[in-house]
Amino acid sequence: MNILLVYAHPEPQSLNGSLKDFAVRHLEASGHHVQVSDLYAMRWKPTLDADDSLAPRGAERFDPSADSKHAFDNGLQSPDIAAEQAKLLWADAVILQFPLWWFSLPAILKGWVDRVYACGFAYGVGEHSDARWGERYGEGTLAGKRAMLVVTTGGWDSHYGPRGINGPIDDLLFPIQHGILYYPGFDVLPPFVAYRTGRTDAARYAALCEQLGERLDTLFSTAPIAFRRQNGGAYEIPALTLRPEIAPQRTGFAAHIQRPDEARGDSGERR
Amino acid sequence: MNILLVYAHPEPQSLNGSLKDFAVRHLEASGHHVQVSDLYAMRWKPTLDADDSLAPRGAERFDPSADSKHAFDNGLQSPDIAAEQAKLLWADAVILQFPLWWFSLPAILKGWVDRVYACGFAYGVGEHSDARWGERYGEGTLAGKRAMLVVTTGGWDSHYGPRGINGPIDDLLFPIQHGILYYPGFDVLPPFVAYRTGRTDAARYAALCEQLGERLDTLFSTAPIAFRRQNGGAYEIPALTLRPEIAPQRTGFAAHIQRPDEARGDSGERR
Repeated sequence: MNILLVYAHPEPQSLNGSLKDFAVRHLEASGHHVQVSDLYAMRWKPTLDADDSLAPRGAERFDPSADSKHAFDNGLQSPDIAAEQAKLLWADAVILQFPLWWFSLPAILKGWVDRVYACGFAYGVGEHSDARWGERYGEGTLAGKRAMLVVTTGGWDSHYGPRGINGPIDDLLFPIQHGILYYPGFDVLPPFVAYRTGRTDAARYAALCEQLGERLDTLFSTAPIAFRRQNGGAYEIPALTLRPEIAPQRTGFAAHIQRPDEARGDSGERR
Repeated sequence: MNILLVYAHPEPQSLNGSLKDFAVRHLEASGHHVQVSDLYAMRWKPTLDADDSLAPRGAERFDPSADSKHAFDNGLQSPDIAAEQAKLLWADAVILQFPLWWFSLPAILKGWVDRVYACGFAYGVGEHSDARWGERYGEGTLAGKRAMLVVTTGGWDSHYGPRGINGPIDDLLFPIQHGILYYPGFDVLPPFVAYRTGRTDAARYAALCEQLGERLDTLFSTAPIAFRRQNGGAYEIPALTLRPEIAPQRTGFAAHIQRPDEARGDSGERR
Protein backbone atom coordinates (compact mmCIF):
# COMPACT_ATOMS: atom_id res chain seq x y z
CA MET A 1 0.00 0.00 0.00
CA ASN A 2 1.01 3.67 -0.27
CA ILE A 3 1.81 5.46 2.96
CA LEU A 4 2.53 9.15 3.50
CA LEU A 5 4.35 10.13 6.69
CA VAL A 6 4.12 13.83 7.49
CA TYR A 7 6.80 14.52 10.07
CA ALA A 8 7.58 17.63 12.11
CA HIS A 9 10.63 17.75 14.35
CA PRO A 10 13.62 20.11 14.01
CA GLU A 11 16.32 17.59 15.01
CA PRO A 12 16.99 14.46 12.93
CA GLN A 13 18.87 12.84 15.85
CA SER A 14 15.90 13.24 18.22
CA LEU A 15 13.64 10.46 19.49
CA ASN A 16 11.11 11.62 16.92
CA GLY A 17 13.70 11.39 14.17
CA SER A 18 14.66 7.88 15.23
CA LEU A 19 11.04 6.73 15.41
CA LYS A 20 10.39 8.22 11.98
CA ASP A 21 13.37 6.36 10.49
CA PHE A 22 12.22 3.17 12.20
CA ALA A 23 8.69 3.58 10.82
CA VAL A 24 9.93 4.09 7.25
CA ARG A 25 12.21 1.03 7.43
CA HIS A 26 9.49 -1.09 9.03
CA LEU A 27 6.83 -0.14 6.50
CA GLU A 28 9.14 -0.64 3.52
CA ALA A 29 10.24 -4.01 4.87
CA SER A 30 6.56 -4.98 4.88
CA GLY A 31 6.33 -4.14 1.20
CA HIS A 32 4.64 -0.75 1.46
CA HIS A 33 5.60 2.29 -0.59
CA VAL A 34 6.45 5.22 1.66
CA GLN A 35 6.78 8.93 1.06
CA VAL A 36 7.95 11.26 3.85
CA SER A 37 7.13 14.94 4.07
CA ASP A 38 9.86 16.02 6.49
CA LEU A 39 8.54 19.53 7.03
CA TYR A 40 11.65 20.95 8.72
CA ALA A 41 13.97 19.45 6.10
CA MET A 42 11.69 20.83 3.38
CA ARG A 43 11.73 24.25 5.05
CA TRP A 44 7.95 24.17 4.76
CA LYS A 45 6.29 27.62 4.73
CA PRO A 46 3.75 27.56 7.55
CA THR A 47 1.98 30.86 6.95
CA LEU A 48 -1.15 30.92 4.80
CA ASP A 49 -1.16 34.17 2.82
CA ALA A 50 -1.73 35.72 -0.60
CA ASP A 51 1.55 34.25 -1.89
CA ASP A 52 -0.12 30.82 -1.87
CA SER A 53 -1.65 31.63 -5.25
CA LEU A 54 0.40 32.07 -8.42
CA ALA A 55 -2.00 34.73 -9.70
CA PRO A 56 -4.25 36.97 -7.62
CA ARG A 57 -8.00 36.60 -7.79
CA GLY A 58 -8.30 40.21 -8.74
CA ALA A 59 -10.34 41.09 -5.70
CA GLU A 60 -9.80 44.11 -3.50
CA ARG A 61 -9.07 42.05 -0.42
CA PHE A 62 -7.36 38.74 0.27
CA ASP A 63 -9.94 36.20 1.44
CA PRO A 64 -8.37 33.00 2.81
CA SER A 65 -11.21 30.74 1.62
CA ALA A 66 -12.15 32.44 -1.64
CA ASP A 67 -8.54 32.86 -2.75
CA SER A 68 -7.73 29.28 -1.80
CA LYS A 69 -10.71 28.01 -3.82
CA HIS A 70 -9.85 30.19 -6.81
CA ALA A 71 -6.27 28.90 -6.83
CA PHE A 72 -7.36 25.28 -6.34
CA ASP A 73 -10.03 25.40 -9.08
CA ASN A 74 -7.76 27.08 -11.61
CA GLY A 75 -4.48 25.26 -11.11
CA LEU A 76 -2.92 28.35 -9.58
CA GLN A 77 -1.83 26.93 -6.26
CA SER A 78 1.72 27.34 -5.03
CA PRO A 79 3.59 24.20 -6.19
CA ASP A 80 4.45 23.15 -2.63
CA ILE A 81 0.74 22.98 -1.80
CA ALA A 82 -0.17 21.06 -4.96
CA ALA A 83 2.64 18.58 -4.31
CA GLU A 84 1.36 17.76 -0.84
CA GLN A 85 -2.19 17.34 -2.13
CA ALA A 86 -0.88 14.91 -4.75
CA LYS A 87 0.82 12.90 -2.00
CA LEU A 88 -2.44 12.79 -0.04
CA LEU A 89 -4.33 11.53 -3.10
CA TRP A 90 -1.61 8.92 -3.73
CA ALA A 91 -1.67 7.61 -0.16
CA ASP A 92 -3.80 4.78 1.18
CA ALA A 93 -2.82 5.80 4.70
CA VAL A 94 -1.38 8.98 6.19
CA ILE A 95 0.59 9.27 9.43
CA LEU A 96 1.14 12.61 11.14
CA GLN A 97 4.12 12.39 13.50
CA PHE A 98 5.02 15.20 15.89
CA PRO A 99 5.93 16.16 19.45
CA LEU A 100 2.92 17.62 21.28
CA TRP A 101 3.85 21.29 21.75
CA TRP A 102 1.45 23.28 23.91
CA PHE A 103 -1.09 20.50 23.60
CA SER A 104 -1.32 20.78 19.82
CA LEU A 105 0.61 20.59 16.56
CA PRO A 106 3.97 22.34 16.15
CA ALA A 107 3.38 25.49 14.08
CA ILE A 108 5.10 24.08 10.99
CA LEU A 109 2.64 21.15 10.93
CA LYS A 110 -0.36 23.36 11.67
CA GLY A 111 0.77 25.43 8.71
CA TRP A 112 0.87 22.32 6.55
CA VAL A 113 -2.79 21.78 7.42
CA ASP A 114 -3.74 25.44 6.98
CA ARG A 115 -2.21 25.60 3.48
CA VAL A 116 -2.59 22.07 2.03
CA TYR A 117 -6.21 21.80 3.16
CA ALA A 118 -7.41 24.10 0.39
CA CYS A 119 -11.00 25.20 -0.11
CA GLY A 120 -12.46 22.76 -2.65
CA PHE A 121 -9.97 20.09 -1.59
CA ALA A 122 -10.43 19.54 2.15
CA TYR A 123 -13.36 21.85 2.89
CA GLY A 124 -16.04 23.54 0.86
CA VAL A 125 -16.57 20.19 -0.89
CA GLY A 126 -20.03 19.18 -2.13
CA GLU A 127 -23.45 20.81 -1.91
CA HIS A 128 -23.92 23.38 0.84
CA SER A 129 -27.58 24.10 1.52
CA ASP A 130 -30.13 23.97 4.31
CA ALA A 131 -30.53 20.28 3.52
CA ARG A 132 -26.90 19.29 3.09
CA TRP A 133 -23.82 20.80 4.67
CA GLY A 134 -21.16 19.65 2.30
CA GLU A 135 -19.22 16.42 2.18
CA ARG A 136 -17.29 16.34 5.41
CA TYR A 137 -16.97 14.39 8.64
CA GLY A 138 -16.81 10.96 7.10
CA GLU A 139 -17.15 12.01 3.47
CA GLY A 140 -14.97 14.15 1.25
CA THR A 141 -11.87 14.10 -0.91
CA LEU A 142 -9.91 11.78 1.37
CA ALA A 143 -12.66 9.26 2.13
CA GLY A 144 -11.57 5.64 2.00
CA LYS A 145 -8.09 6.47 3.29
CA ARG A 146 -6.78 5.86 6.79
CA ALA A 147 -4.96 8.24 9.10
CA MET A 148 -3.13 7.90 12.40
CA LEU A 149 -1.28 10.23 14.75
CA VAL A 150 2.13 9.34 16.20
CA VAL A 151 2.72 11.70 19.11
CA THR A 152 5.40 12.18 21.77
CA THR A 153 4.91 14.07 25.03
CA GLY A 154 7.24 15.04 27.84
CA GLY A 155 4.44 14.67 30.39
CA TRP A 156 3.49 11.38 32.01
CA ASP A 157 0.53 9.30 30.97
CA SER A 158 -1.22 10.09 34.26
CA HIS A 159 -1.04 13.81 33.41
CA TYR A 160 -3.10 13.00 30.32
CA GLY A 161 -5.50 10.57 31.99
CA PRO A 162 -9.25 10.98 32.58
CA ARG A 163 -8.56 13.20 35.62
CA GLY A 164 -5.04 14.33 34.68
CA ILE A 165 -4.20 18.02 34.86
CA ASN A 166 -3.51 18.47 31.14
CA GLY A 167 -6.84 16.96 30.14
CA PRO A 168 -7.43 13.50 28.65
CA ILE A 169 -5.25 12.83 25.63
CA ASP A 170 -8.25 11.74 23.54
CA ASP A 171 -9.94 15.08 24.17
CA LEU A 172 -6.76 17.07 23.45
CA LEU A 173 -6.40 15.21 20.16
CA PHE A 174 -10.09 15.47 19.19
CA PRO A 175 -9.67 18.77 17.31
CA ILE A 176 -6.95 17.07 15.26
CA GLN A 177 -8.43 13.58 14.86
CA HIS A 178 -12.02 14.69 14.28
CA GLY A 179 -11.58 18.30 13.13
CA ILE A 180 -8.58 17.81 10.80
CA LEU A 181 -8.52 14.10 9.86
CA TYR A 182 -12.14 12.90 9.93
CA TYR A 183 -13.35 16.20 8.43
CA PRO A 184 -12.08 15.58 4.87
CA GLY A 185 -12.99 11.91 5.03
CA PHE A 186 -10.18 9.92 6.65
CA ASP A 187 -10.96 6.88 8.76
CA VAL A 188 -8.99 7.74 11.90
CA LEU A 189 -7.19 5.07 13.89
CA PRO A 190 -6.53 5.36 17.62
CA PRO A 191 -3.36 7.38 18.14
CA PHE A 192 0.07 6.05 19.05
CA VAL A 193 1.25 8.18 21.98
CA ALA A 194 4.65 7.90 23.67
CA TYR A 195 4.66 9.66 27.06
CA ARG A 196 7.51 10.88 29.26
CA THR A 197 10.00 10.96 26.44
CA GLY A 198 12.44 13.41 28.04
CA ARG A 199 14.83 10.62 28.87
CA THR A 200 14.45 7.58 26.67
CA ASP A 201 17.08 4.91 27.24
CA ALA A 202 17.86 2.01 24.90
CA ALA A 203 15.45 -0.43 26.55
CA ARG A 204 12.59 2.04 26.43
CA TYR A 205 13.41 2.91 22.83
CA ALA A 206 13.33 -0.75 21.88
CA ALA A 207 9.96 -1.13 23.58
CA LEU A 208 8.58 1.92 21.78
CA CYS A 209 9.75 0.54 18.42
CA GLU A 210 8.09 -2.79 19.15
CA GLN A 211 4.81 -1.09 20.07
CA LEU A 212 4.94 1.22 17.07
CA GLY A 213 5.81 -1.69 14.80
CA GLU A 214 2.68 -3.52 15.93
CA ARG A 215 0.56 -0.48 15.13
CA LEU A 216 2.16 -0.17 11.68
CA ASP A 217 1.58 -3.88 11.03
CA THR A 218 -2.13 -3.39 11.72
CA LEU A 219 -2.52 -0.07 9.95
CA PHE A 220 -5.06 -1.54 7.54
CA SER A 221 -6.87 -3.82 9.98
CA THR A 222 -7.24 -1.78 13.19
CA ALA A 223 -10.81 -0.58 13.71
CA PRO A 224 -11.11 3.20 13.22
CA ILE A 225 -12.53 5.50 15.88
CA ALA A 226 -16.33 5.30 15.46
CA PHE A 227 -16.94 8.99 14.74
CA ARG A 228 -20.50 9.66 13.55
CA ARG A 229 -20.97 10.63 9.91
CA GLN A 230 -22.39 14.10 9.39
CA ASN A 231 -24.70 13.02 6.60
CA GLY A 232 -25.57 9.61 8.01
CA GLY A 233 -28.71 10.70 9.84
CA ALA A 234 -27.41 11.38 13.37
CA TYR A 235 -27.37 15.16 12.96
CA GLU A 236 -30.03 17.78 12.34
CA ILE A 237 -29.14 19.91 9.34
CA PRO A 238 -28.35 22.82 9.15
CA ALA A 239 -28.09 23.15 12.96
CA LEU A 240 -25.62 20.25 12.86
CA THR A 241 -26.47 19.12 16.35
CA LEU A 242 -27.08 15.51 17.36
CA ARG A 243 -30.74 14.53 17.01
CA PRO A 244 -32.46 14.21 20.39
CA GLU A 245 -32.76 10.43 20.12
CA ILE A 246 -29.03 9.99 19.44
CA ALA A 247 -27.02 9.49 22.64
CA PRO A 248 -29.57 11.41 24.68
CA GLN A 249 -28.11 13.40 27.57
CA ARG A 250 -24.57 13.04 26.25
CA THR A 251 -22.63 16.18 25.38
CA GLY A 252 -19.08 17.09 24.45
CA PHE A 253 -16.52 15.46 22.17
CA ALA A 254 -17.34 11.88 23.18
CA ALA A 255 -20.97 12.23 22.07
CA HIS A 256 -19.69 12.23 18.48
CA ILE A 257 -18.25 8.74 18.88
CA GLN A 258 -20.68 5.86 18.58
CA ARG A 259 -20.56 3.43 21.50
CA PRO A 260 -20.63 -0.28 20.72
CA ASP A 261 -24.02 -0.66 22.43
CA GLU A 262 -25.62 2.27 20.61
CA ALA A 263 -27.86 2.38 17.60
CA ARG A 264 -25.81 3.52 14.63
CA GLY A 265 -27.88 6.66 14.31
CA ASP A 266 -27.32 6.70 10.61
CA SER A 267 -28.82 5.10 7.58
CA GLY A 268 -26.54 2.14 8.02
CA GLU A 269 -25.08 1.97 4.57
CA ARG A 270 -21.38 1.36 4.23
CA ARG A 271 -19.75 4.02 2.11
CA MET B 1 -3.55 49.73 32.20
CA ASN B 2 -1.21 48.14 29.65
CA ILE B 3 -2.77 45.87 27.08
CA LEU B 4 -1.08 43.67 24.49
CA LEU B 5 -3.14 42.54 21.51
CA VAL B 6 -1.60 39.65 19.60
CA TYR B 7 -3.38 39.52 16.28
CA ALA B 8 -3.22 37.00 13.44
CA HIS B 9 -5.08 37.61 10.19
CA PRO B 10 -3.52 38.05 6.74
CA GLU B 11 -5.93 40.76 5.48
CA PRO B 12 -6.13 44.19 7.17
CA GLN B 13 -9.51 44.86 5.52
CA SER B 14 -11.07 41.68 6.94
CA LEU B 15 -13.64 41.48 9.73
CA ASN B 16 -10.79 40.52 12.02
CA GLY B 17 -8.81 43.56 10.94
CA SER B 18 -11.77 45.85 11.57
CA LEU B 19 -12.45 44.34 14.99
CA LYS B 20 -8.77 44.72 15.89
CA ASP B 21 -8.80 48.41 14.90
CA PHE B 22 -12.01 48.90 16.85
CA ALA B 23 -10.51 47.25 19.94
CA VAL B 24 -7.40 49.42 19.84
CA ARG B 25 -9.42 52.63 19.46
CA HIS B 26 -11.86 51.57 22.17
CA LEU B 27 -9.15 50.64 24.67
CA GLU B 28 -7.15 53.81 24.01
CA ALA B 29 -10.28 55.94 24.36
CA SER B 30 -10.70 54.36 27.80
CA GLY B 31 -7.22 55.52 28.77
CA HIS B 32 -5.37 52.24 28.36
CA HIS B 33 -1.96 51.89 26.75
CA VAL B 34 -2.06 49.41 23.87
CA GLN B 35 0.60 47.54 21.96
CA VAL B 36 -0.33 45.37 18.97
CA SER B 37 1.69 42.43 17.75
CA ASP B 38 0.28 42.17 14.22
CA LEU B 39 1.96 38.88 13.35
CA TYR B 40 1.30 38.98 9.60
CA ALA B 41 2.45 42.60 9.33
CA MET B 42 5.56 41.73 11.37
CA ARG B 43 6.22 38.73 9.10
CA TRP B 44 6.55 36.69 12.28
CA LYS B 45 8.69 33.55 11.92
CA PRO B 46 6.47 30.67 13.08
CA THR B 47 8.97 27.83 13.06
CA LEU B 48 10.87 27.00 16.24
CA ASP B 49 14.39 25.92 15.29
CA ALA B 50 18.09 26.29 16.08
CA ASP B 51 18.13 29.80 14.58
CA ASP B 52 16.16 31.01 17.61
CA SER B 53 19.42 31.25 19.55
CA LEU B 54 22.15 33.75 18.71
CA ALA B 55 24.83 31.28 19.76
CA PRO B 56 24.58 27.50 19.76
CA ARG B 57 24.61 25.60 23.03
CA GLY B 58 27.55 23.58 21.78
CA ALA B 59 25.70 20.31 22.01
CA GLU B 60 25.70 17.63 19.38
CA ARG B 61 21.96 17.83 18.82
CA PHE B 62 19.39 20.61 18.85
CA ASP B 63 17.05 20.13 21.80
CA PRO B 64 13.98 22.41 21.69
CA SER B 65 13.73 22.76 25.48
CA ALA B 66 17.41 22.75 26.45
CA ASP B 67 18.40 25.16 23.68
CA SER B 68 15.50 27.44 24.51
CA LYS B 69 16.50 27.49 28.18
CA HIS B 70 20.15 28.11 27.38
CA ALA B 71 19.27 31.05 25.13
CA PHE B 72 16.79 32.46 27.65
CA ASP B 73 19.15 32.17 30.61
CA ASN B 74 22.09 33.70 28.79
CA GLY B 75 20.49 36.54 26.87
CA LEU B 76 21.02 34.72 23.59
CA GLN B 77 17.46 34.63 22.35
CA SER B 78 16.57 35.86 18.88
CA PRO B 79 15.58 39.55 19.31
CA ASP B 80 12.05 38.97 17.99
CA ILE B 81 11.44 36.46 20.79
CA ALA B 82 12.89 38.70 23.51
CA ALA B 83 10.79 41.64 22.26
CA GLU B 84 7.55 39.67 22.58
CA GLN B 85 8.50 38.47 26.07
CA ALA B 86 9.11 42.10 27.06
CA LYS B 87 5.63 43.02 25.80
CA LEU B 88 4.12 40.19 27.85
CA LEU B 89 5.93 41.38 30.98
CA TRP B 90 4.79 44.97 30.29
CA ALA B 91 1.14 44.01 29.83
CA ASP B 92 -1.53 43.87 32.51
CA ALA B 93 -3.80 42.07 30.07
CA VAL B 94 -3.19 40.14 26.86
CA ILE B 95 -5.70 39.50 24.09
CA LEU B 96 -5.13 36.86 21.43
CA GLN B 97 -7.29 37.59 18.38
CA PHE B 98 -7.58 35.16 15.49
CA PRO B 99 -9.92 33.31 13.13
CA LEU B 100 -10.43 29.71 14.24
CA TRP B 101 -8.66 27.70 11.52
CA TRP B 102 -9.15 23.95 11.77
CA PHE B 103 -10.44 24.34 15.31
CA SER B 104 -7.22 25.91 16.56
CA LEU B 105 -4.78 28.80 16.14
CA PRO B 106 -3.54 29.86 12.70
CA ALA B 107 0.01 28.54 12.30
CA ILE B 108 1.59 31.99 12.61
CA LEU B 109 0.02 32.43 16.06
CA LYS B 110 0.84 28.88 17.14
CA GLY B 111 4.42 29.70 16.17
CA TRP B 112 4.30 32.83 18.34
CA VAL B 113 3.44 30.56 21.27
CA ASP B 114 6.00 27.89 20.35
CA ARG B 115 8.84 30.43 20.18
CA VAL B 116 7.95 33.16 22.70
CA TYR B 117 7.01 30.65 25.39
CA ALA B 118 10.66 29.85 26.12
CA CYS B 119 11.85 27.28 28.63
CA GLY B 120 12.52 29.22 31.81
CA PHE B 121 10.00 31.87 30.80
CA ALA B 122 6.67 30.10 30.23
CA TYR B 123 7.56 26.54 31.22
CA GLY B 124 10.30 24.87 33.18
CA VAL B 125 9.75 27.56 35.84
CA GLY B 126 10.28 26.77 39.53
CA GLU B 127 11.20 23.62 41.42
CA HIS B 128 10.52 20.33 39.64
CA SER B 129 10.56 17.38 42.02
CA ASP B 130 8.33 14.57 43.23
CA ALA B 131 6.78 17.08 45.64
CA ARG B 132 6.41 20.06 43.35
CA TRP B 133 5.91 20.14 39.61
CA GLY B 134 7.05 23.62 38.80
CA GLU B 135 5.14 26.87 38.86
CA ARG B 136 2.42 26.47 36.29
CA TYR B 137 -1.36 26.29 35.95
CA GLY B 138 -2.13 29.35 38.02
CA GLU B 139 1.43 30.27 38.96
CA GLY B 140 4.39 31.29 36.85
CA THR B 141 5.99 34.22 35.09
CA LEU B 142 2.71 35.73 33.91
CA ALA B 143 0.70 35.33 37.15
CA GLY B 144 -1.37 38.35 38.08
CA LYS B 145 -2.06 39.23 34.45
CA ARG B 146 -5.30 38.64 32.58
CA ALA B 147 -5.82 37.06 29.17
CA MET B 148 -8.75 36.70 26.80
CA LEU B 149 -9.35 35.16 23.40
CA VAL B 150 -11.19 37.02 20.63
CA VAL B 151 -12.17 34.43 18.02
CA THR B 152 -14.13 34.38 14.79
CA THR B 153 -15.64 31.27 13.19
CA GLY B 154 -17.40 30.64 9.92
CA GLY B 155 -19.58 27.97 11.53
CA TRP B 156 -22.79 28.68 13.40
CA ASP B 157 -23.05 28.80 17.17
CA SER B 158 -25.16 25.62 17.12
CA HIS B 159 -22.30 23.77 15.40
CA TYR B 160 -20.18 24.61 18.47
CA GLY B 161 -22.89 23.91 21.07
CA PRO B 162 -22.97 21.14 23.69
CA ARG B 163 -24.13 18.61 21.04
CA GLY B 164 -22.84 20.45 17.97
CA ILE B 165 -20.85 18.51 15.41
CA ASN B 166 -17.61 20.47 15.83
CA GLY B 167 -17.57 19.96 19.57
CA PRO B 168 -18.39 22.55 22.24
CA ILE B 169 -16.43 25.77 21.80
CA ASP B 170 -15.27 25.73 25.42
CA ASP B 171 -13.73 22.30 24.92
CA LEU B 172 -12.11 23.26 21.61
CA LEU B 173 -10.57 26.29 23.30
CA PHE B 174 -9.49 24.42 26.47
CA PRO B 175 -6.04 23.50 25.10
CA ILE B 176 -5.50 27.21 24.41
CA GLN B 177 -7.18 28.75 27.45
CA HIS B 178 -5.91 26.21 29.99
CA GLY B 179 -2.86 24.76 28.23
CA ILE B 180 -1.41 27.99 26.79
CA LEU B 181 -2.84 30.86 28.89
CA TYR B 182 -3.45 29.46 32.38
CA TYR B 183 -0.26 27.39 32.22
CA PRO B 184 2.21 30.30 32.64
CA GLY B 185 -0.07 32.00 35.15
CA PHE B 186 -2.66 34.14 33.34
CA ASP B 187 -6.12 34.56 34.80
CA VAL B 188 -8.21 33.61 31.76
CA LEU B 189 -11.48 35.39 31.00
CA PRO B 190 -14.34 33.74 29.12
CA PRO B 191 -13.69 34.08 25.39
CA PHE B 192 -15.34 36.48 22.99
CA VAL B 193 -16.50 34.38 20.04
CA ALA B 194 -18.17 35.73 16.89
CA TYR B 195 -19.85 32.94 14.90
CA ARG B 196 -21.03 32.75 11.29
CA THR B 197 -18.80 35.56 10.17
CA GLY B 198 -18.75 34.66 6.46
CA ARG B 199 -21.16 37.45 5.66
CA THR B 200 -21.16 40.26 8.19
CA ASP B 201 -23.32 43.22 7.20
CA ALA B 202 -23.16 46.68 8.77
CA ALA B 203 -25.83 45.99 11.38
CA ARG B 204 -24.17 42.80 12.50
CA TYR B 205 -20.77 44.49 12.58
CA ALA B 206 -22.18 47.26 14.78
CA ALA B 207 -23.65 44.66 17.13
CA LEU B 208 -20.33 42.80 17.30
CA CYS B 209 -18.47 46.03 18.13
CA GLU B 210 -20.96 46.81 20.88
CA GLN B 211 -20.58 43.33 22.38
CA LEU B 212 -16.79 43.42 22.11
CA GLY B 213 -16.71 46.91 23.58
CA GLU B 214 -18.58 45.66 26.65
CA ARG B 215 -16.05 42.87 27.10
CA LEU B 216 -13.16 45.34 26.77
CA ASP B 217 -14.80 47.67 29.29
CA THR B 218 -14.93 44.83 31.83
CA LEU B 219 -11.51 43.37 31.05
CA PHE B 220 -10.33 44.01 34.60
CA SER B 221 -13.58 43.18 36.41
CA THR B 222 -14.93 40.07 34.65
CA ALA B 223 -14.51 36.94 36.76
CA PRO B 224 -11.88 34.60 35.29
CA ILE B 225 -12.60 30.97 34.44
CA ALA B 226 -12.22 29.08 37.74
CA PHE B 227 -9.45 26.72 36.64
CA ARG B 228 -7.95 24.79 39.55
CA ARG B 229 -4.42 25.70 40.64
CA GLN B 230 -1.90 22.90 40.22
CA ASN B 231 -0.19 23.61 43.53
CA GLY B 232 -3.32 24.56 45.46
CA GLY B 233 -4.02 21.11 46.86
CA ALA B 234 -6.50 19.69 44.34
CA TYR B 235 -3.94 17.51 42.57
CA GLU B 236 -1.80 14.58 43.62
CA ILE B 237 1.84 15.23 42.80
CA PRO B 238 3.68 13.94 40.78
CA ALA B 239 0.81 12.00 39.19
CA LEU B 240 -0.93 15.35 38.65
CA THR B 241 -4.38 13.83 38.78
CA LEU B 242 -7.30 15.27 40.74
CA ARG B 243 -7.45 13.91 44.29
CA PRO B 244 -10.30 11.41 44.75
CA GLU B 245 -12.28 13.80 46.94
CA ILE B 246 -12.14 16.61 44.36
CA ALA B 247 -15.11 16.53 41.98
CA PRO B 248 -15.51 12.79 42.42
CA GLN B 249 -16.74 10.94 39.32
CA ARG B 250 -16.02 13.94 37.08
CA THR B 251 -13.55 13.51 34.23
CA GLY B 252 -12.41 15.48 31.22
CA PHE B 253 -11.64 19.16 30.70
CA ALA B 254 -14.54 20.45 32.80
CA ALA B 255 -13.29 18.64 35.91
CA HIS B 256 -10.44 21.18 36.04
CA ILE B 257 -12.87 24.04 36.49
CA GLN B 258 -14.23 24.59 39.97
CA ARG B 259 -18.03 24.78 40.13
CA PRO B 260 -19.59 27.48 42.30
CA ASP B 261 -21.07 24.89 44.67
CA GLU B 262 -17.80 22.98 45.08
CA ALA B 263 -15.23 23.10 47.81
CA ARG B 264 -12.23 25.05 46.56
CA GLY B 265 -10.07 21.98 46.75
CA ASP B 266 -7.08 24.09 47.49
CA SER B 267 -5.51 25.74 50.47
CA GLY B 268 -7.73 28.74 49.99
CA GLU B 269 -5.13 31.45 50.00
CA ARG B 270 -5.37 34.16 47.41
CA ARG B 271 -2.16 34.45 45.45
